[in-house]
Amino acid sequence: MAKLYHVPLSPFCRKVRLSLAEKKIECELVEERYWEESPEFLRRNPAGKVPVLKIDGRTMAESGPICEYIEEKYPEPALMPTSPEGRYEVRRLVGWFDDKFHQEVTSKLLYERVNKKVMGRGFPDSGNVKSGARAIKYHLDYMAWLLDHRRWLAGDKMTLADFAAAAHLSALDYISDVDWNRSDVVKDWYAKIKSRPAFRGILSDQVPGFPPPAHYADLDF
Amino acid sequence: MAKLYHVPLSPFCRKVRLSLAEKKIECELVEERYWEESPEFLRRNPAGKVPVLKIDGRTMAESGPICEYIEEKYPEPALMPTSPEGRYEVRRLVGWFDDKFHQEVTSKLLYERVNKKVMGRGFPDSGNVKSGARAIKYHLDYMAWLLDHRRWLAGDKMTLADFAAAAHLSALDYISDVDWNRSDVVKDWYAKIKSRPAFRGILSDQVPGFPPPAHYADLDF
Repeated sequence: MAKLYHVPLSPFCRKVRLSLAEKKIECELVEERYWEESPEFLRRNPAGKVPVLKIDGRTMAESGPICEYIEEKYPEPALMPTSPEGRYEVRRLVGWFDDKFHQEVTSKLLYERVNKKVMGRGFPDSGNVKSGARAIKYHLDYMAWLLDHRRWLAGDKMTLADFAAAAHLSALDYISDVDWNRSDVVKDWYAKIKSRPAFRGILSDQVPGFPPPAHYADLDF
Repeated sequence: MAKLYHVPLSPFCRKVRLSLAEKKIECELVEERYWEESPEFLRRNPAGKVPVLKIDGRTMAESGPICEYIEEKYPEPALMPTSPEGRYEVRRLVGWFDDKFHQEVTSKLLYERVNKKVMGRGFPDSGNVKSGARAIKYHLDYMAWLLDHRRWLAGDKMTLADFAAAAHLSALDYISDVDWNRSDVVKDWYAKIKSRPAFRGILSDQVPGFPPPAHYADLDF
């Protein structure tokens, strides 16, 4: 069976968990306090990050290459379109969320409010929190603009781009940092993706010291 | 004909240029002073970054998704292996150079020494330069370790991983920041890749105010 070293609220780990679950690949989850840099963990991944996935006799790091591997090795159900143009758009949006959204929003809100405390690295920087709270509005508006034109973020079908976005938003929703009233189309999109069986594991996550709000796991939020 | 908006020393632009040239896709190069944020350029790419590639009637941003698109649309000669395991390794290494090497080395050396001056943003931070000069040693040693086991960085054949690495190293070599005496296998690898016809454009780059050293374009460096 596959084994994933992860932390529950990491959007990169969540993206991998969603891909595995959607393709019904059984996977044991092992929580990894990677910031404590245990020698065993550093041997598995010298970069000292999560996710690390053990699958098919291999140990893999980096969520982007991991998800492409899962897609190529376990193609059904597909999380990528077949045309090069469609695949470009999926990859562009995965990069948008994992680079730009991550830097402007996730790192400014989740990492300040949760990771710093969990890792014992002090208190949230209020300037960062304000900057993240401002930036998420602009990102939600961009998602609304995409979803006005498309059923899913990258086109007609659900893809890895939706999982990348939902991975970040669900982690932020765990700390009530997403204003679902800002856009009906974004809320409808999240309701659709949240109700998938692949999402169940993520909705049952619990971080000690940070109980989720009631709406977090509610499909009718 | 394709058109690439770029800056000469950007490793992300160089990776795209190498891919296009290796596949003999003709491409007009347009230098883009993206930090001046001209309205025309921001219309092409709201993220305000280079590279931006116009090809096949589309406008694309983000070097990773662009290179995957080029590979899928123009598969010959192949810059990716066929097995999911081999493709994972290529993508892992592309990520290694474009994320980790970029953050620890390129941004600390090239951006401090060249970009700051070109963009009129002051003088190099000596702490950053020292940190980059330290980090490149460890990265060259990692490359040497890979190349002790493999003909090319990701395996038996030249791939996008080699282009990603060569894009960073060639930009740093332009400012004499690579110690080629540190490892024979790394030097041999760079000599092989430097002598490819696809590399010619990059070796003839000139940045005003920063003349390249004599060894930069010398195939027998």
